[in-house]
Amino acid sequence: MTRKELVEQIMKKRSFLCVGLDTDIKKIPEHLLDTEDPIFEFNKAIIDATAPWCVAYKPNLAFYEALGAKGQLALEKTVAYLKKNYPEQFIIADAKRGDIGNTSKLYARSFFEYLDVDAVTVAPYMGEDSVTPFLGYEGKWVILLALTSNKGSHDFQLIRDENGNRLFENVIKKSQEWASPDEMMYVVGATQGQMFEDIRRVAPKSFLLVPGVGAQGGSLEEVCRYGMIDDCGLLVNSSRGIIYASTGRDFAEVAGAEAKKLRDQMDGLLK
Amino acid sequence: MTRKELVEQIMKKRSFLCVGLDTDIKKIPEHLLDTEDPIFEFNKAIIDATAPWCVAYKPNLAFYEALGAKGQLALEKTVAYLKKNYPEQFIIADAKRGDIGNTSKLYARSFFEYLDVDAVTVAPYMGEDSVTPFLGYEGKWVILLALTSNKGSHDFQLIRDENGNRLFENVIKKSQEWASPDEMMYVVGATQGQMFEDIRRVAPKSFLLVPGVGAQGGSLEEVCRYGMIDDCGLLVNSSRGIIYASTGRDFAEVAGAEAKKLRDQMDGLLK
Repeated sequence: MTRKELVEQIMKKRSFLCVGLDTDIKKIPEHLLDTEDPIFEFNKAIIDATAPWCVAYKPNLAFYEALGAKGQLALEKTVAYLKKNYPEQFIIADAKRGDIGNTSKLYARSFFEYLDVDAVTVAPYMGEDSVTPFLGYEGKWVILLALTSNKGSHDFQLIRDENGNRLFENVIKKSQEWASPDEMMYVVGATQGQMFEDIRRVAPKSFLLVPGVGAQGGSLEEVCRYGMIDDCGLLVNSSRGIIYASTGRDFAEVAGAEAKKLRDQMDGLLK
Repeated sequence: MTRKELVEQIMKKRSFLCVGLDTDIKKIPEHLLDTEDPIFEFNKAIIDATAPWCVAYKPNLAFYEALGAKGQLALEKTVAYLKKNYPEQFIIADAKRGDIGNTSKLYARSFFEYLDVDAVTVAPYMGEDSVTPFLGYEGKWVILLALTSNKGSHDFQLIRDENGNRLFENVIKKSQEWASPDEMMYVVGATQGQMFEDIRRVAPKSFLLVPGVGAQGGSLEEVCRYGMIDDCGLLVNSSRGIIYASTGRDFAEVAGAEAKKLRDQMDGLLK
């Protein structure tokens, strides 16, 4: 999906919500456990209930890999279901991959040719040749980790170099030599608040994927105040706050209502 | 596997060789493509031929994920084959994972409970809470990326902080607050040569997993001169240089001979 198409969806739906499909077999409603593929059944119901209020879905691969080959199948079925029934949705494989060149090339093939999602999250530690194999697929995106939402983000990402630049700033600056803002986004945690001002100084035109609203405690208003640009430039993700809002038989309905609540806030914040 | 057990194997076999099972369906001998599971058949033959000369195997997950659920099955079968027939071998899942705490915990479960390998490679960018969920499994190891073998390692890993410490040094120093040298190793590329001296200054007791000998051009002698410690402290990996040494019907035999060649060099270099 191109940037133009993504922005059109955001403006049409008045939403820049991404729903995180972090589907944990230990947390889904009991009555689904008797079905043939509980993970897929859960995802399907969540998707049908939330699709009107969001523009993107982000399955985190860890949750599927934890189930071995069965989990891999559930993921493939979920992506296929989205592509068939909601082709306007942007699909992000949250995989945080990154390896030497010939290996990253294989990961890129997995995600962009085999699974055929729109974007994949990539870890920057190994540098240029670990990231560039994911580029050059038409309409596909790399979403590079920059300043993450977790406590550990302070361990290395904030280290200042001899010129006073922090590591996440070096990652953003350097990686813009590899890719344009039409093919690379950055992960910036909602928990980082005013840091969005610093991010916008080094990445004025890039889309940001923002996890950490909801269960992790980030503020949507603060993210928008400091992070929003003319064509929005934000995809704000909520996972647990939506998909596990209820663990009863009404889980999908309640998830839909939670997604709508966020979308209504977004409607008010969108320029 | 504990450090003591690993060192015993190294001393017994006079080898610290790790064979990288980067099994690419596009590179394996043609006559295997007619079998039910070509990837597993290839791995089995390679393992049988090389096991006397190595102490560890390292499948890189990218190669298996590229084949979807089928690849995942081939990986599971390969690990099960090793555990049944060569329980003395140390098995490393080269996955380079790392995510927020609750997600890393799931990856840890996948690798240490479900797949039941001895070690997993982890990327440090997201800091402490992305790494610690992999710790605390008895006899299991985290192998943290420090100074990788690829060209892109220069992009961020060598950035000096305000005190002159490079990022890879900060990663090694900081992570030693999280784990002892009996449960954490570091990835250091063989292509980094004399940098091993600097590594040993900050990680005098840690095992190092060293890729980059062979196809990537690193020197085994240099690695040993600067990196070897009393109980060896090195696992040197070769992937393509062994498993694709021949692409004919004699592929396993030639792989065994290549592994033996490396092992004979190692025998001479071991203290």
